[in-house]
Amino acid sequence: MHASSFQPPPRTLMGPGPADVHPRVLAALARPTIGHLDPAFSAMMEELKGLLRYAFRTDNTLTMPVSAPGSAGMETCFVNLVEPGDKVIVCVNGVFGARMRENVLRAGGTPVVVEDPWGRAVNPSMLEDTLQRHPDARLVAFVHAETSTGACSDAKTLAELARTYDCLTIVDAVTSLGGSPLEVDAWGIDAVYAGSQKCLSCTPGLAPVSFSERALAKVKARQTPVRSWFMDLNLVLGYWQASDCGGGRRSYHHTAPVNALYALHEALVMLAEEGIENAWERHRNNHLALRAGLEALGLEMVVPEPERLPQLNAVAVPGGIDEAAVRSRLLATYNLEIGAGLGALAGKVWRIGLMGWSSRAENILLCLGALGSVLNDMGHSADTGVALSAAQAALGR
Amino acid sequence: MHASSFQPPPRTLMGPGPADVHPRVLAALARPTIGHLDPAFSAMMEELKGLLRYAFRTDNTLTMPVSAPGSAGMETCFVNLVEPGDKVIVCVNGVFGARMRENVLRAGGTPVVVEDPWGRAVNPSMLEDTLQRHPDARLVAFVHAETSTGACSDAKTLAELARTYDCLTIVDAVTSLGGSPLEVDAWGIDAVYAGSQKCLSCTPGLAPVSFSERALAKVKARQTPVRSWFMDLNLVLGYWQASDCGGGRRSYHHTAPVNALYALHEALVMLAEEGIENAWERHRNNHLALRAGLEALGLEMVVPEPERLPQLNAVAVPGGIDEAAVRSRLLATYNLEIGAGLGALAGKVWRIGLMGWSSRAENILLCLGALGSVLNDMGHSADTGVALSAAQAALGR
Repeated sequence: MHASSFQPPPRTLMGPGPADVHPRVLAALARPTIGHLDPAFSAMMEELKGLLRYAFRTDNTLTMPVSAPGSAGMETCFVNLVEPGDKVIVCVNGVFGARMRENVLRAGGTPVVVEDPWGRAVNPSMLEDTLQRHPDARLVAFVHAETSTGACSDAKTLAELARTYDCLTIVDAVTSLGGSPLEVDAWGIDAVYAGSQKCLSCTPGLAPVSFSERALAKVKARQTPVRSWFMDLNLVLGYWQASDCGGGRRSYHHTAPVNALYALHEALVMLAEEGIENAWERHRNNHLALRAGLEALGLEMVVPEPERLPQLNAVAVPGGIDEAAVRSRLLATYNLEIGAGLGALAGKVWRIGLMGWSSRAENILLCLGALGSVLNDMGHSADTGVALSAAQAALGR
Repeated sequence: MHASSFQPPPRTLMGPGPADVHPRVLAALARPTIGHLDPAFSAMMEELKGLLRYAFRTDNTLTMPVSAPGSAGMETCFVNLVEPGDKVIVCVNGVFGARMRENVLRAGGTPVVVEDPWGRAVNPSMLEDTLQRHPDARLVAFVHAETSTGACSDAKTLAELARTYDCLTIVDAVTSLGGSPLEVDAWGIDAVYAGSQKCLSCTPGLAPVSFSERALAKVKARQTPVRSWFMDLNLVLGYWQASDCGGGRRSYHHTAPVNALYALHEALVMLAEEGIENAWERHRNNHLALRAGLEALGLEMVVPEPERLPQLNAVAVPGGIDEAAVRSRLLATYNLEIGAGLGALAGKVWRIGLMGWSSRAENILLCLGALGSVLNDMGHSADTGVALSAAQAALGR
């Protein structure tokens, strides 16, 4: 078998994630591996849990990274909180809401779907109607930041509604964590999951989660075993929640992805250094600059203004333009990755990410310059100079 | 929130895994992240699948790494192959066999357990008796290399028996892959899973798996959906099995752990450079040298000679010695990690790993020298000089 070392081409990542990973995080990733039961590692785990609480704005004891990608974070929430027969209201306004519904089914629950248009926020009054019609519902699940469309839902209002009707909430914050306001405790969210590779700007592969005491009580009161051994919180907690971090008392569950956790720790240290409110503001300001430039190129945003995510910008593909050809040329000529549409929006939109370390002035200029140039080549007249000026003005430079 | 970058202490890893990770693998891990749908990444994935086929000694098309630790590799096999009501014979001779039984239950199957003593190989005639008594069994599951005890079972004979009785096999090769002979095709194994952090000497967090056509046919003929969305092979394959690697046609399932896959690729390139038979021989020779030294220290191996794994050496703790204190001193004084006993062997044994890059002459000398010195300090008289000479003689140096 002949194969040689893989050297990835240098890319600028402005798709729906992974985002650009800061050299400090890559350096942390490459530090020598130590044992997953090493006391030095246990101390790092404790610090990591504290940093995640900071990022989620929560005091939840049960706050930790699942040792697998965001999708497994989603499944960890559903497989632990849904018992066979539980009725779960799922708000679907994109790919990830639809995936939540699928998770309810796999866990043996009965989903009740509230359908919202793709590209729009979840409609609270439709959720309330559904809650009234299904007084036996136990859970409400929705996506805070729909990565497939760029729409941001009002998680505070939705969680409040759920609580009024005595339902627990499961919230997808894969793309919001670290990029736009998310207040797990103040909004009363019961279970939330995120991804390492979006606005935290870490490498992909980990899923931070947090569970309220109410959620944990439901897990502990289950009548049936959790359908997954790997994701069963009753078992995972023996490793992550041991009170003593001097070594020896953590019980083995699975081998933690040691180096990936170094990287997540470093990404969160950087977030704490910046300050989470400053990170939110940076995402917001850079989004406004990109938007100014995109509109100057004659492009239209898909999501209405008040429902737009700053970190994920869905842009309508102009008529007559082959969207995949544009992405291929951006990648081939400028080493720039932007995202395609997913599901109902496939072929109709590009998704331009400004997540984490990708959310910086130089990336905005590169994206506008490259996109303007490729669009002009393909016959869509666009004034790149005007677009760059608009962005620079918005950036205050 | 104040926290600073984590700097792990330098360790030599001679426990049950993770093993020492080679600097080439750490360097690969830290290369810049690219998109999980990038054509350059797709080409790397294709090569990685080929390298895994080389390591597993198989032509199975469905050979890939699961994006999560070895325990999730185990669950991927069970949750896809076991349907509610399926009877599964599980051979239990340690912690991981017991975990397999638990996985059968979570998948809705009915386990029939063949109990073997801890520290011994699985007994084929007991399996055959059980197969005769349960003609309706659909699957046989066993652990090839029991990491909790250091016993190696005769996977070829066990798989043959299973086939004779028309059962599919699920084999745990977490600790055997890359460290001792494993012949997936020649032995007729149907589903096998491993871990990245043992004899492949990669960082922890990935679980290579391989499925035969017979196994895949059972997955495709299921009457009920797989209970896990994240691990459902019908979905995962849309990403990993796309025939075209020129980009564009892979369907999104979850975001692959890009950097971890760079590292696994590099670890497998190194295995191919060494040659897998040479890697097996190195593990065997280093085991013989360590064993010679341990016996010269007056220590006893737990597993009988013909059933011993070369890469995981269970050693009986001498009477009157506090096993945890020895491990703590090895770590504090020499930065050397060895493993504790698990389950029925907790407190009674140490587990000394010689896995992957940890399996090298300098580690053997360090381990014997450090262990001899600590045992002497604790009142167990041991002649460290004689032990080192015995190991060096066995190493031919």
